Amino acid sequence: MSHEPDLMQKIVSLCKRRGFVFQSSEIYGGLKSAYDYGPLGVELKRNIMNAWWRDMVVRREDVVGIDASIIMHPRVWEASGHLAGFSDPLVDCLVCKERFRADKAPLAAAGDALVLEFADKGRAKVAEDLIRERFSVELQRDGRTLTGAVAGDRGYVCPVCRSPWLSDERQFNLMFRSSIGPVDPMGAVAAAIERGELEGLKGRDLRVKIDELTKESAVYLRPETAQAMFVQFANVQQSMSMKVPFGIAQMGKSFRNEITVEHFIFRSCEFEQMEMEFFCEPGTDDEWMAYWSAERMGWWKKFANDPGKFRLRPHEPDELAHYAKGCFDIEYAYPWGWGELEGVANRTDYDLNKHAKYSGANLTYFDPQQQKRFTPFVIEPAAGATRGLLVYLIDAYCEEAVPDAKGEDATRVVLKLHPQLAPIKVAVLPLVKKNGMPERAREVVDAFFRRGISARYDEQHAIGKRYRRHDEIGTPWCLTVDGQTLEDGTLTIRDRDTMQQRRISVDDAVAEIEGLLRD
Amino acid sequence: MSHEPDLMQKIVSLCKRRGFVFQSSEIYGGLKSAYDYGPLGVELKRNIMNAWWRDMVVRREDVVGIDASIIMHPRVWEASGHLAGFSDPLVDCLVCKERFRADKAPLAAAGDALVLEFADKGRAKVAEDLIRERFSVELQRDGRTLTGAVAGDRGYVCPVCRSPWLSDERQFNLMFRSSIGPVDPMGAVAAAIERGELEGLKGRDLRVKIDELTKESAVYLRPETAQAMFVQFANVQQSMSMKVPFGIAQMGKSFRNEITVEHFIFRSCEFEQMEMEFFCEPGTDDEWMAYWSAERMGWWKKFANDPGKFRLRPHEPDELAHYAKGCFDIEYAYPWGWGELEGVANRTDYDLNKHAKYSGANLTYFDPQQQKRFTPFVIEPAAGATRGLLVYLIDAYCEEAVPDAKGEDATRVVLKLHPQLAPIKVAVLPLVKKNGMPERAREVVDAFFRRGISARYDEQHAIGKRYRRHDEIGTPWCLTVDGQTLEDGTLTIRDRDTMQQRRISVDDAVAEIEGLLRD
Repeated sequence: MSHEPDLMQKIVSLCKRRGFVFQSSEIYGGLKSAYDYGPLGVELKRNIMNAWWRDMVVRREDVVGIDASIIMHPRVWEASGHLAGFSDPLVDCLVCKERFRADKAPLAAAGDALVLEFADKGRAKVAEDLIRERFSVELQRDGRTLTGAVAGDRGYVCPVCRSPWLSDERQFNLMFRSSIGPVDPMGAVAAAIERGELEGLKGRDLRVKIDELTKESAVYLRPETAQAMFVQFANVQQSMSMKVPFGIAQMGKSFRNEITVEHFIFRSCEFEQMEMEFFCEPGTDDEWMAYWSAERMGWWKKFANDPGKFRLRPHEPDELAHYAKGCFDIEYAYPWGWGELEGVANRTDYDLNKHAKYSGANLTYFDPQQQKRFTPFVIEPAAGATRGLLVYLIDAYCEEAVPDAKGEDATRVVLKLHPQLAPIKVAVLPLVKKNGMPERAREVVDAFFRRGISARYDEQHAIGKRYRRHDEIGTPWCLTVDGQTLEDGTLTIRDRDTMQQRRISVDDAVAEIEGLLRD
Repeated sequence: MSHEPDLMQKIVSLCKRRGFVFQSSEIYGGLKSAYDYGPLGVELKRNIMNAWWRDMVVRREDVVGIDASIIMHPRVWEASGHLAGFSDPLVDCLVCKERFRADKAPLAAAGDALVLEFADKGRAKVAEDLIRERFSVELQRDGRTLTGAVAGDRGYVCPVCRSPWLSDERQFNLMFRSSIGPVDPMGAVAAAIERGELEGLKGRDLRVKIDELTKESAVYLRPETAQAMFVQFANVQQSMSMKVPFGIAQMGKSFRNEITVEHFIFRSCEFEQMEMEFFCEPGTDDEWMAYWSAERMGWWKKFANDPGKFRLRPHEPDELAHYAKGCFDIEYAYPWGWGELEGVANRTDYDLNKHAKYSGANLTYFDPQQQKRFTPFVIEPAAGATRGLLVYLIDAYCEEAVPDAKGEDATRVVLKLHPQLAPIKVAVLPLVKKNGMPERAREVVDAFFRRGISARYDEQHAIGKRYRRHDEIGTPWCLTVDGQTLEDGTLTIRDRDTMQQRRISVDDAVAEIEGLLRD
């Protein structure tokens, strides 16, 4: 595996050149942090997501799927806590990155001496370096703490690390807001201006008034797929007669108005998730947490060339979301360092309780065997599908020194994608464009089409060049129809990774590939 | 097939009770016109969409797929014409439903005599009845025209039918608008109010000023998936070396802020499309139009019990979108009448030309064989996936008089879904919950799970009740493990539609079902 610094650049370039990933709306200069999946990218993404669905839903008796609307009732986001911050000023800590409400932050008068505190020594060191470099202030480090900082004029500090280095206050929410129905919110605001209703209002009062005018029609794009599983818990449990423990799974798009977008498709405003909420009896949650962490880790490794690049990292207590009892990140060694691929969180009964409270609905479960009623705890394996696609591209990308047709030194680029994930399973190639070979090859490719197997017929350029072209897009097998095919009904099957060839019967070609795909 | 007036009510009720379709955010009172697909609904929808993808993309050399972002660059919607109407007052004709810009409508002074004109006699009759019932005005009908109407005080009439019965003017656009980036548009407007910049402005001037303040960050949810195929035409053609004629296909969510939502999931604000843009040489477009109309009609009928409920209806010239040279609607006989399921339109070179003009990009194609360059024409088969799901539910819903276990008159409800579309392919049932039958049945269901075939183990209630339960959700086959199974290794396979049973070997069960699914 090639992990030099320019690896990402090579992958981005291959993605565009070969139809995996394009910048969204590229002809218009692109839209920041939005991507379109091209003909090969969409197949790779579908293969990853369909494998997840097969393994998490179809093959399991204890998990069922749903597909909920992206625009949900706004009360969902009030209950989940996502709606905070549209009327309230938010501030980012420039040291620990916490985003918090300015009006709820711990107070500190200008000149107060501050002790900054972090989860561990490592994090304290990172913060010390950042403060030195970015703010030219030298602090004293002692274990998890930094001393020597002094509060500024803001009147408050970061509620997590107590840093005084903070962004400006701003109205900010990660959710995309829109409006539904015939009332255009800008029209409502314009009408209120014309009526003079907003005159003299300032600051928070003005914002609250504007929010009131537009609230009726406000809707939000979901920032995670998870909430639908809580909101529809009772409908799903009852209509399918599910017994706890059981899970509800969903795949689909989520949207976050991210300020920091980075590393190609790693963090983007529109992304695809694969989430499952597993409802279990309180007291069994730690057990299920261990089960799902192991299960999910095994799933990612199953399709990877280098399982050593995946690790399970427990969250430090201070990293945990306020509702979570515990969380493991499944991390991958991206070219820029370890980063998240999936999170497995113990969300406890937080979400069901919140939605029960906000909606008035009964979201408890009656266990018929134990004759008792309880609110289930939830273990949530939440994976990024588009992030998974990036991980497998990085895992698959190889450059190998292989002599070219003339025997001279050359490099072949090969995507060693797992055959089940490869966009095209098999390329069918006539050795030359004559002597009946194209016709025979077309018969072979048609047999694959009939079986619904992704295949390509390719007759352009010399055979060696065609092999390289398919190496570069990860096609696991090339079938070549040559002179002998017309005589004895055999063709060659070439393995992408070993480049070895052997002859098989034309009649066996589809069954052979189906067998290889199954292993 | 049961088409009584309350058929829809029965289907809606079955959908909720058995986990096909729930109202979105139901515990919060629901969100108007948004739906969640439950455990069975999501499988049915996936089966329809995956069959479309297999037949339109995987099995064809001349079509490739993409998956583009839902939020595209705003210029895309300027070029496509969708962005008109955010600053301009729109009006709906209450007779022919046309939505138009008030400032561009044909003028008519109060008291002017009007001649209303429609596409055909039938439509004129419908309009006559509507005007009589809704506005208590009796007009005279002569073929396609209605006379006797008089212009009101509005100063203009409907540009299509010349009706004076119009909605109020309003700022309206079918697109959902949102904003991207750290600038909250409401914050920008609030700041402008505080600075006094909006004082004294009224009407259109005020709206234009507000639009200016918020334009920088404005983005829109796509109202159709089609535009991405035009915008990415060159990237796809070049990266995949596609030769015209070829198509680009996409499935996914689109959003329209529909005022009129109706008939369950028939028309909703958030829906799923399956669209393909087929790029061909000008002059061959009529031929391809005929090809795709027939192809798509055949596809829908392939999975239906009653192909006679589908028809192809050519659009009247006045029904055509301004960019279209021709359009066929594939219609279905819904319980409330004929309605659209898919449209096959000849969009000409309109879209590629528009995007070339707005972006400056070259969206022409050079034909290497003919040595000439041209802008392709586009034939677009655009289908509703969620609408397709509704059609197949209606097509499948049956009530049959079948005696119950005691031989008394009873009705069985059966969903005669095509086996390839059925959410669960096979139910595995131990005859009784003892004598080793549950264990043996679990082995059978596990064999299906291993092959990734959607199966259910079910041991609750008497066997007859379990058959009915699976009839109602469309499971094509029930496999029953009984006493004989433990002796001779055979089980019964029961056909949903005929209710006939026969014995097959347990070892052959998976292969048997795979064979039946293939036919």
